[in-house]
Amino acid sequence: MKKLSIIKVGGNLINDELKFDQAIKSFSLLPGPKILVHGGGSMASSLCQTLGIEPIVKEGRRVTDLNTLEIVTMVYAGLINKKIVSRLQKYDCNAIGFSGADGNMIQSVKRPVTKIDYGFVGDIDCINSDLLIRLLEEKITPVFCAITHDGQGQLLNTNADTIASTMAKELSTHYDIELKYCFEKDGVLVNPLDDDSMMAELGYTTYLEYRQHGIISDGMIPKLDNAFSAKKDGVSKVVVCGINGIVSNKGTIICE
Amino acid sequence: MKKLSIIKVGGNLINDELKFDQAIKSFSLLPGPKILVHGGGSMASSLCQTLGIEPIVKEGRRVTDLNTLEIVTMVYAGLINKKIVSRLQKYDCNAIGFSGADGNMIQSVKRPVTKIDYGFVGDIDCINSDLLIRLLEEKITPVFCAITHDGQGQLLNTNADTIASTMAKELSTHYDIELKYCFEKDGVLVNPLDDDSMMAELGYTTYLEYRQHGIISDGMIPKLDNAFSAKKDGVSKVVVCGINGIVSNKGTIICE
Repeated sequence: MKKLSIIKVGGNLINDELKFDQAIKSFSLLPGPKILVHGGGSMASSLCQTLGIEPIVKEGRRVTDLNTLEIVTMVYAGLINKKIVSRLQKYDCNAIGFSGADGNMIQSVKRPVTKIDYGFVGDIDCINSDLLIRLLEEKITPVFCAITHDGQGQLLNTNADTIASTMAKELSTHYDIELKYCFEKDGVLVNPLDDDSMMAELGYTTYLEYRQHGIISDGMIPKLDNAFSAKKDGVSKVVVCGINGIVSNKGTIICE
Repeated sequence: MKKLSIIKVGGNLINDELKFDQAIKSFSLLPGPKILVHGGGSMASSLCQTLGIEPIVKEGRRVTDLNTLEIVTMVYAGLINKKIVSRLQKYDCNAIGFSGADGNMIQSVKRPVTKIDYGFVGDIDCINSDLLIRLLEEKITPVFCAITHDGQGQLLNTNADTIASTMAKELSTHYDIELKYCFEKDGVLVNPLDDDSMMAELGYTTYLEYRQHGIISDGMIPKLDNAFSAKKDGVSKVVVCGINGIVSNKGTIICE
């Protein structure tokens, strides 16, 4: 099978010009077909604040109301996505930015209201892998933001880590995939305060133990859940790394 | 030659749900390959105001500083573009939203500083018509916002009417093109206060006369200059119309 790289980066990347340029340049150097997925990060929150839109949090979970949805659509699909795409063009990587609505790439279902109404949040229903593969074969590099749609004209906010893992799983029947989750550390750390404590690899049993003992916590949990889910469902190689891990082998390899 | 419709609509459209739905539905019903180009309208200005970014105007011309560029990128490429694309998907039209950076579709040159420094404004240099044609043949409907790029990582603000006419001219060697400029009136009016005074057609000599006598003025001038320029340079049919002219023959036909 042909190789395909799927790289997930945080949206905050664009705030640090040096790191941003390094990450985009590294990504552009990856040989063969590749997909970039980016999050939104704190920029949407700070724009919400500036506009006086208070974040709505229910039972510790963020809720996307209509105003927030408009902000995230502007920041993710507009500002961040187009900054990344134009920078990739600079490095001769012919990128096209996508929300899930574009090309009907990612259709999702508005999360049903149970105890909590998450608002305009979408859980992925299907990926238009036919079109995605055709574009990759045309040497197009798709750059996905974390906005999807329900097929009925409604945009929805969807977790970028989940988009990356779902896309990797979906395309794993067609490609030999390397999925990399890039974040601010060089890999998964045994001691979050010690950058030298990076694990070379992390198996599922160890992960569960570390979770139980609070060694792995907070935002790392959903990220690693997505990483293990991808590994379990046929993605050849899953790595959690820093931006210097985009082209190198540095990072924590996720094992079954 | 194959037919191709290029429709330019204003960005304000999305503020009026009824008109927005009518326009998008009508556009989706157009048979054969088609391209939608949309402006930004007043939404960017009002977001600038809310954020306390004062519009900079030099000698009556609006200047795009870095803050304004970020706002227009968010509003045009993010909010408006994705609302249009997701609504088109509802009507089974497989649209992909584009800035000029996506797919290197529209490369532009930052307007040189002469008497006025327009800031981050781009004058179109070239259109990636090869990729555009390949996508149209794949039954993709491109939806363009009025953001371009310089190929060096810089996004630039570009007039949407000019994008529509330049694209139409560029593709006119490959397609038999119908270019429609949709705005708030049903066509060009002899008396701007009388909606029944629409001209069935408008030739260039008459246009120049009307301009001289102030019958055609303000924002209509650059729009009509673009329309005449397209007609002169090989675009088969150019029409100025309202949204009810998208699928019907209503509107003012631009003649040489």
